[in-house]
Amino acid sequence: MLKEMFENVRAKSPLIHNITNYVTVNDCANIVLACGGSPIMSDDADEVEEITAICSGININIGTLNSRTIASMLLAGKKANELRHPAVLDPVGAGASKLRTDTAKKLLNDVRFDVIRGNVSEIKTLASGAGTTKGVDAGIEDRVTENNLDEAVAFAKAFAKKTGAVIIITGAIDIVSDDKTAYCIRNGHRMMSSITGTGCQLSALTAAFIAANPENVLKASAAAVCAMGLAGEIAHARLSETDGNSSYRNYIIDAIYNMTPELLEEGARYEMR
Amino acid sequence: MLKEMFENVRAKSPLIHNITNYVTVNDCANIVLACGGSPIMSDDADEVEEITAICSGININIGTLNSRTIASMLLAGKKANELRHPAVLDPVGAGASKLRTDTAKKLLNDVRFDVIRGNVSEIKTLASGAGTTKGVDAGIEDRVTENNLDEAVAFAKAFAKKTGAVIIITGAIDIVSDDKTAYCIRNGHRMMSSITGTGCQLSALTAAFIAANPENVLKASAAAVCAMGLAGEIAHARLSETDGNSSYRNYIIDAIYNMTPELLEEGARYEMR
Amino acid sequence: MLKEMFENVRAKSPLIHNITNYVTVNDCANIVLACGGSPIMSDDADEVEEITAICSGININIGTLNSRTIASMLLAGKKANELRHPAVLDPVGAGASKLRTDTAKKLLNDVRFDVIRGNVSEIKTLASGAGTTKGVDAGIEDRVTENNLDEAVAFAKAFAKKTGAVIIITGAIDIVSDDKTAYCIRNGHRMMSSITGTGCQLSALTAAFIAANPENVLKASAAAVCAMGLAGEIAHARLSETDGNSSYRNYIIDAIYNMTPELLEEGARYEMR
Repeated sequence: MLKEMFENVRAKSPLIHNITNYVTVNDCANIVLACGGSPIMSDDADEVEEITAICSGININIGTLNSRTIASMLLAGKKANELRHPAVLDPVGAGASKLRTDTAKKLLNDVRFDVIRGNVSEIKTLASGAGTTKGVDAGIEDRVTENNLDEAVAFAKAFAKKTGAVIIITGAIDIVSDDKTAYCIRNGHRMMSSITGTGCQLSALTAAFIAANPENVLKASAAAVCAMGLAGEIAHARLSETDGNSSYRNYIIDAIYNMTPELLEEGARYEMR
Repeated sequence: MLKEMFENVRAKSPLIHNITNYVTVNDCANIVLACGGSPIMSDDADEVEEITAICSGININIGTLNSRTIASMLLAGKKANELRHPAVLDPVGAGASKLRTDTAKKLLNDVRFDVIRGNVSEIKTLASGAGTTKGVDAGIEDRVTENNLDEAVAFAKAFAKKTGAVIIITGAIDIVSDDKTAYCIRNGHRMMSSITGTGCQLSALTAAFIAANPENVLKASAAAVCAMGLAGEIAHARLSETDGNSSYRNYIIDAIYNMTPELLEEGARYEMR
Repeated sequence: MLKEMFENVRAKSPLIHNITNYVTVNDCANIVLACGGSPIMSDDADEVEEITAICSGININIGTLNSRTIASMLLAGKKANELRHPAVLDPVGAGASKLRTDTAKKLLNDVRFDVIRGNVSEIKTLASGAGTTKGVDAGIEDRVTENNLDEAVAFAKAFAKKTGAVIIITGAIDIVSDDKTAYCIRNGHRMMSSITGTGCQLSALTAAFIAANPENVLKASAAAVCAMGLAGEIAHARLSETDGNSSYRNYIIDAIYNMTPELLEEGARYEMR
């Protein structure tokens, strides 16, 4: 039952350490609050280990990375591992520059992540080193569709096996997979790609969900992805003729705020493969 | 009369230098504009003294601090003192890490602040060195309630005396106090804690209010706190069933934008202790 | 026809590299998405050249600059020149500090910009070294009005000739000029100055417009300025009594999202001088 995953977030109000980009950081903080968690942002090497220690989960997002924050990501990730705190990696733009690809790989090498979330292009870059990333959005040739879904699921399972992490590949169809079981999720709305940071927000949300459900990382991740997609649907239904992507951004966070575990259970649309 | 404090902000449109975190910086800028002030954000040591010099007040917020910005905070704070510009300190997360606690104390030691604003946990950390900060939110055991209000007021007055600053402790009941007189303010709505940065915004707002009323720091601070709380009430009354914390964030800033000095006077709910 | 400029943005969906301040960066990303472009933010010297290379235009904004990001601006700007990618400079706060003035001038010296956009005070600083910048907003004595419009146009043309760039001076009347022809644009609403970052957003929008119309930089810039102003008008018409500057911010981006090339053509109000 996905709803129990959400109930635990609301009940436990996990404190989530976010080392994330300055583009979408405010939305990440507000969506963590919306789901019932509590966010703290801190990216300096002189404090990240202490901040991680008082939290119950960490979300590392490499957008707008630099050498100072990369060092902090590594320190905080290792500390989270030491304390067995659930950790999410969002390899924003891996494949778009050597720095991003190398940093994502270095993080994967040095830190054990419970969840890795990206678009198919970013995940492929991590898995193979041969990405076709167009900026921070998935390359068109890399879209997951009904036609290549089985192939994408097999790819996600293989990468999950290799890394020990739950892999989340977001797109028109979202895949949430460990090495054995994949949730193929059909929630969401294509207008979500007209807002900056829905991916970043999902990573932050996922960190809150797995921190509240450390024994159920796969299911908690699926619940977070369904919640985000469902929020995108609810928010879209609410749009007036004059509303555009900026209001949509607010409505999505609002929808997470107003979502109940029961609504999530009813609205989640997924199959297992 | 609190309304005169607000009238002066609108009349003088003070330019406020903000050295603040990248999480809530946009909201801080927009709320300063909403109240009638003008914000400028600048955090580099090579320019902060010049920027401070062209402003009439400064707001130093230590969220997402790092060694580069800490140096800038010290330089700018000292320059503000030299020019007798009103200065606000927001010790975000003091107690959550040694870096934050030490930085806040270093700032307190090297710079004379006119106002220090934080939650009870952050202020206690500064006063005693023995905080129980849970991330950036007040620890539950530290909440100001009707039962411990007198004790909290006495604490605020003592810390005001020690620092020479007006102390603002925000929570369910807000305390704004110098060494002799405390405003106990009952404006606000508990949903304000579901948004990131209402505290940061209040600090920026307070900087605008005291910069426009440098001879009346206590009353101007109380006016800012009442204005923020009243905005939280007005914004809450405006929420539809589908609105959540993200729309609420917008409505609070909107409410400051539309607030008149008269509305503030009528809506302010406080007592002196 | 301005509408063709907008049609090209929607058709080509240019990827825009933004090195910009952390205050308004989220709004810049969302307005680029709203117009049909795709934004990527990256400011580290170790990757900016690669990021610029995968983009089709660049927007360099010096707000919240520091030595690390200044180096990145120079590297990225030179790479954009090498690849003949259209480049926009937004000299936020030039004149407000030596660092900002020197950085803007250094950028102008080392990088060839296709467009320079600022308020009259910032542009005057770049042109003469004798600015009267009051923070990041235009000094009152520097406003472009009907009375001094011819003088301002002559100034813009002279600076366009000197730099080889299209000059955009925004204010109550906007001027978009190369060395021979100036668009004097009367779209917009004065409430736009009550939001942080409408200027930054316009610079990002302009980068998307010129990247999609590299052979028509003047006209594409005029189209972007008209679109932004028209969005300000449409958004203002939509305001309810309780809406303020924060909702207005959302509505402006929404208006860009919903704008059609035809609406832009009909709503643009300009004359050539």
